[in-house]
Amino acid sequence: MTREDARALDAADPIAPFRDRFALPDGVIYLDGNSLGALPRSVPVALADAAQRQWGTRLIRSWNEGWIDVPQRLGAKIAPLIGAAADEVIVGDTTSTHLFKAIVAALRHHSGRRTVVSEAGNFPTDLHIAEGAVACVPGARLKVVERAALADALDDDTALLLLTHVHYKTSERFDLAGWTARAHAAGALMLWDFSHSVGAVRLDVTAAEADMAVGCTYKFLNGGPGAPAFLYVARRHQAALANPISGWMGHAEPFAFQDGYRPADGMKRWLVGTPSILAMASLEVALDLWTGIDEDALATKSAALFAILAQAGAAAGLSCVSPADPAARGSHISFRAPYAYALTQALIARGVIGDFRDPDILRLGLTPLYLSHEDVWQAGEHLRAIVATEEWRDPAFSTRNAVT
Amino acid sequence: MTREDARALDAADPIAPFRDRFALPDGVIYLDGNSLGALPRSVPVALADAAQRQWGTRLIRSWNEGWIDVPQRLGAKIAPLIGAAADEVIVGDTTSTHLFKAIVAALRHHSGRRTVVSEAGNFPTDLHIAEGAVACVPGARLKVVERAALADALDDDTALLLLTHVHYKTSERFDLAGWTARAHAAGALMLWDFSHSVGAVRLDVTAAEADMAVGCTYKFLNGGPGAPAFLYVARRHQAALANPISGWMGHAEPFAFQDGYRPADGMKRWLVGTPSILAMASLEVALDLWTGIDEDALATKSAALFAILAQAGAAAGLSCVSPADPAARGSHISFRAPYAYALTQALIARGVIGDFRDPDILRLGLTPLYLSHEDVWQAGEHLRAIVATEEWRDPAFSTRNAVT
Repeated sequence: MTREDARALDAADPIAPFRDRFALPDGVIYLDGNSLGALPRSVPVALADAAQRQWGTRLIRSWNEGWIDVPQRLGAKIAPLIGAAADEVIVGDTTSTHLFKAIVAALRHHSGRRTVVSEAGNFPTDLHIAEGAVACVPGARLKVVERAALADALDDDTALLLLTHVHYKTSERFDLAGWTARAHAAGALMLWDFSHSVGAVRLDVTAAEADMAVGCTYKFLNGGPGAPAFLYVARRHQAALANPISGWMGHAEPFAFQDGYRPADGMKRWLVGTPSILAMASLEVALDLWTGIDEDALATKSAALFAILAQAGAAAGLSCVSPADPAARGSHISFRAPYAYALTQALIARGVIGDFRDPDILRLGLTPLYLSHEDVWQAGEHLRAIVATEEWRDPAFSTRNAVT
Repeated sequence: MTREDARALDAADPIAPFRDRFALPDGVIYLDGNSLGALPRSVPVALADAAQRQWGTRLIRSWNEGWIDVPQRLGAKIAPLIGAAADEVIVGDTTSTHLFKAIVAALRHHSGRRTVVSEAGNFPTDLHIAEGAVACVPGARLKVVERAALADALDDDTALLLLTHVHYKTSERFDLAGWTARAHAAGALMLWDFSHSVGAVRLDVTAAEADMAVGCTYKFLNGGPGAPAFLYVARRHQAALANPISGWMGHAEPFAFQDGYRPADGMKRWLVGTPSILAMASLEVALDLWTGIDEDALATKSAALFAILAQAGAAAGLSCVSPADPAARGSHISFRAPYAYALTQALIARGVIGDFRDPDILRLGLTPLYLSHEDVWQAGEHLRAIVATEEWRDPAFSTRNAVT
């Protein structure tokens, strides 16, 4: 591929106009949108309105002028991105807190079954939170096994299978419907973590018959650093599953100020405390960017960006750990190298921001909304140029720069 | 009191210059800062910087340029407001989530004791969360009793006494040191909710030997709607108490990406997921306003504002439910009336924003930082004028406008 080839792809790219909706710094090729999405240009305006008009001028009255419904309203905006109905998603808290609530709820629902099964090497907070959640349910335990052993780990004691849909390091993607069906065949509920999937790949929880899902909004959804996360609970489970962190915002009548807790109907029961309205204001306009996006065009572009870097990595002699089949991966590409840390730093020095994942992974995010084919081609050229220098070919250098 | 008297108090008020640091709408006397504090003028600037420079331009690099330490940095700024050391407070999550973590932790710490004692009519989320927390610890239970029965409710099964320091309706204040000592004498830990105290009254957790405390930052601390809450854990308990919502941000090495949870030392272990940096940016500059404030002058002014409204209320024939002794209350005043809802609405129609608390309380917040004596005197005049009209004297009207 040449620069001209990349430009030709850009000229024909139906997603290309979305780049102008983001503020990106000059001199940077940003390949870390899978960790922190870029700033939508609409966000500073929305923040100024939320602070100056809604908070500053309307003050407490704003709670009756839109704030109180923000968790549901944003949930309804995320719903189409995961194939859910508007009343099956709510926004607030962190991904970790949602995981805690969902795992405890699932264990209590399945009182005869005591095991949560998950994958070794899953994103740490999924496993850490599962560890904490099982400690809140008498007799419950967490079974963490390698991917190859997951199917055999499901048995008649399994209450819940917890999987992260797209792996944060390798980009490997689980078959959403297939693994949900496996969990159901074993009599378990299925909880998906979509943190590296939502906004990156097409999701359909309804077709897959998924029971619950959580997801991060500050990666491919560009909601802002630490933006509130979402929780999906299939409508068929909403009445039976209860939130263990039973805060007032999830009460049926929070402003009746009753001593006893009585959960709200629907997704509202999953709320805990008062959400940050400023964080929600940023996320809301970031979500509005997704209106009218052609998901097929997005997937096509993601695959094209991947191919450019895969080719550059292969030319540099790097080992790609992400699947070759677009249907089997998310929207980032990872290379394994003992000197991955030094390589990440060298790329950053050239304005190519990716990230390093301990101990030996260089991870590069491919965000079709604001990356051009030429950007990614240029990043690939930098990658090749760095690895091709004599210094980098020297085994002693590689060892010196390895993180051990 | 006359308008001139109020103006004379304003002229001599050392706190008066702080009013200019807040953006308040024209034509409004804002007596609801105990529910949502007013907008500091520094907030929109801080939000723009956090969004445009830190997020937009520095992108993921900002995590290494200050974001990762925000929970501790803001905790250190809250610490002096409650009499804690800088390393005893952390910010993030909601008050409700902090309550959940603290209650479960206390129950597990005191494995031989199974009861959490709290007050009937406490702020609902405290009781709701306690209900959820005891369900996470085998054999634990919640005992909710009237204020007069609290002392007798403490016994050798009490693991934790949970009290809200200043009552959200009545403004009644518990004796911090006295009730902490009572809990300790019974062998229990003491958990305070400072939501209506912090920024309103002088607090000293160190002198009181309080064990744990939580508090809201969007009331008297003006952090913004739904601003992140704080958690205090006395240093002597930090190693022994564990966070049940064991998320990756509380891990000793979150970026080592290990499967097993290992809690960080100190307050960091109480973190769960990634906090909203935008929400934190707003809160941080709101907290910076407190530097150099004379707490005695603040208390004096709060008492003077209270006296003005207490006098107006008495002249209007309203029943004040807040204590006459300044040391026995917070910084709001509440009146009980069967037509309190209609009265609240009538005040709002005249630009005086207070709030109604079901079923019969008119609640007026007294925030010395941005209210003048004249503001409060004017509000009192409105209150007297409304209640004095023939219509309001008509028992039929009162009944018609009562919330039942």
